[in-house]
Amino acid sequence: MVKNIIGKNDFVESLRGKKATFLLSLSNTKTSEIEGITQAGIPGKIYLTPTLDSEFLCTGEVRSLDNIAETPKGVPTPALITRAVHLLKPYGNIELLDLGLLIPPKVSYFNIHNFEITPSMSIAEDAKIDAMAVFQKGLAFGQTFECKDDYIILSESVPSGTTTACATALALDYDTKKLFSSSFKDVPTSIRELTIESALKNINNEDDLFSRLGKVADNMLIFNAGFILGLNNKTKIILAGGTQMACVLLIVNSILKTMGGEFDTSNLALCTTKWVYEDENSDIKALLEMLDFSINAYYPEFDFSTSNHPALKLYDQGEAKEGVGAGAALVYGLINGLNNENIIKQIESFLG
Amino acid sequence: MVKNIIGKNDFVESLRGKKATFLLSLSNTKTSEIEGITQAGIPGKIYLTPTLDSEFLCTGEVRSLDNIAETPKGVPTPALITRAVHLLKPYGNIELLDLGLLIPPKVSYFNIHNFEITPSMSIAEDAKIDAMAVFQKGLAFGQTFECKDDYIILSESVPSGTTTACATALALDYDTKKLFSSSFKDVPTSIRELTIESALKNINNEDDLFSRLGKVADNMLIFNAGFILGLNNKTKIILAGGTQMACVLLIVNSILKTMGGEFDTSNLALCTTKWVYEDENSDIKALLEMLDFSINAYYPEFDFSTSNHPALKLYDQGEAKEGVGAGAALVYGLINGLNNENIIKQIESFLG
Repeated sequence: MVKNIIGKNDFVESLRGKKATFLLSLSNTKTSEIEGITQAGIPGKIYLTPTLDSEFLCTGEVRSLDNIAETPKGVPTPALITRAVHLLKPYGNIELLDLGLLIPPKVSYFNIHNFEITPSMSIAEDAKIDAMAVFQKGLAFGQTFECKDDYIILSESVPSGTTTACATALALDYDTKKLFSSSFKDVPTSIRELTIESALKNINNEDDLFSRLGKVADNMLIFNAGFILGLNNKTKIILAGGTQMACVLLIVNSILKTMGGEFDTSNLALCTTKWVYEDENSDIKALLEMLDFSINAYYPEFDFSTSNHPALKLYDQGEAKEGVGAGAALVYGLINGLNNENIIKQIESFLG
Repeated sequence: MVKNIIGKNDFVESLRGKKATFLLSLSNTKTSEIEGITQAGIPGKIYLTPTLDSEFLCTGEVRSLDNIAETPKGVPTPALITRAVHLLKPYGNIELLDLGLLIPPKVSYFNIHNFEITPSMSIAEDAKIDAMAVFQKGLAFGQTFECKDDYIILSESVPSGTTTACATALALDYDTKKLFSSSFKDVPTSIRELTIESALKNINNEDDLFSRLGKVADNMLIFNAGFILGLNNKTKIILAGGTQMACVLLIVNSILKTMGGEFDTSNLALCTTKWVYEDENSDIKALLEMLDFSINAYYPEFDFSTSNHPALKLYDQGEAKEGVGAGAALVYGLINGLNNENIIKQIESFLG
């Protein structure tokens, strides 16, 4: 069952039975090395998470490490969900976008787009991103991208990405401090807030939009804003993620406001998980309602309430919420004939 | 679950969810009329096996005979497996290659490529194949073939084909006598060895590569070596078979050695069954390791251990191992969301 966050269900219904190209955008930011800021990965090796996620999604193996990335409390990466759906109802194509990875994924035969983007620095000081260059790379990629399937699912794996997303939205003057999610259940308000406060202190009034993005955003946010604008509504696209993808939309919104352009968003939607939708520490709906354009957004009525696996139960307790396009992957499965039971069984089979 | 024989799983993972054109190459050789050399068919009517296999694969009916080809002990043709997968996850196209059939299959609407190739004689005397002509027909077909799907599965049905394959590899000076499979559990060493010995006696030192092939090979082996070279890596292709397809690769290898050419094999792989992989009377892995080029090879973790049907149990006892691309068909099913249970149920439904 696919539920609406905002908009109507016609968009997602029109994709029922259709094939998607699954794009996974991957990036490292030094922000993730701030101790305690994220649990999306192995302590001390958080930088490996996007690399391992993409390896596991493509091949079922984590090649740059021995075990699937587990968070300290043992919450497995949402890549398990995305891979499970792929095994049961394969995406038409999986392509990887290297938007600044420290360690490139060890996979062959899959299209890995390299944009010569380097990992960004910590936003606590200054992310030091050439935001205009990254944006234009995204724009060009969108303009030239030819989808081999019926539509695109655009996902991400960026550790500490909700922190950079929150800082970005605030730097663009959206009043969103309370609306952003984190991968923690008990949101580490202090570390996050301190980091974001530090980031915002670097912004001054002379900074234009791209100058702000360069200081407090991450490569994924900036590139994908460009990608969406470059696609220019020619292909149906689902932004697969929670508050980070909402922030991509806020950036698009700010660019449109600055440039005064018209933009048709009829082929643009967002899918996230039920865990993000129901999160009490963030408000995806409120974020999307800040946009000046209309958009459809969905989440799957999927949780692990019928599973007995303790690691999966942690999702339902809010310990992990989204990533590697898990929400959109679930929606993809559900609109292609799968049900929650099939998917849970497959996920459990990974964990043994 | 798809397992690696050699190479990594990236190739097969990159085909997950993609559609294949299923090519079935069909040929008769008088070698199969040597009494006791093969059980791939009905005694006295072994020559009908490729015709019946192709009819059943395309239409679900055996039209040139009343019943599905059964071996004396009642092992049904592996075409049952290939057809079962087609019913559950259809191949994009099925096309038949008539490489010298006595009785053309009675099917309409399916593309039957006719190459004006006649059935070959017994290798015990001299197969009398114009090997260069057959090779060049394969080469031309590969050069001009335009795949309508994402990749090709190239299968075969050639009774006594493991005998001609073994003779061919030995005639090309590969040390492979113990590495070849047969459709018998209790390998009829005497008949097979006598036949192969007779075949090799006809080879003399003046015989060049094609002259040797003309005496001891079969049309399928020669044509497909040409086809692969003609394709020239432009399309992903899975060689669907066991030791016979390994022999096709050995021929390709010898041709490349003779001609001194470079050949990109990155889009070439082999899939066979678990029964071939685990066969104690042959060694598919060792055969593939004789190649001077690298290749990926796979088998599906599929057997009939969960079936109660006595005819299917015979596969697990080693009575039938491969044919009509059964191994690749199973892999195709598994990377398109099927599981062993689905497939076994479908196969059982054919047998009543």
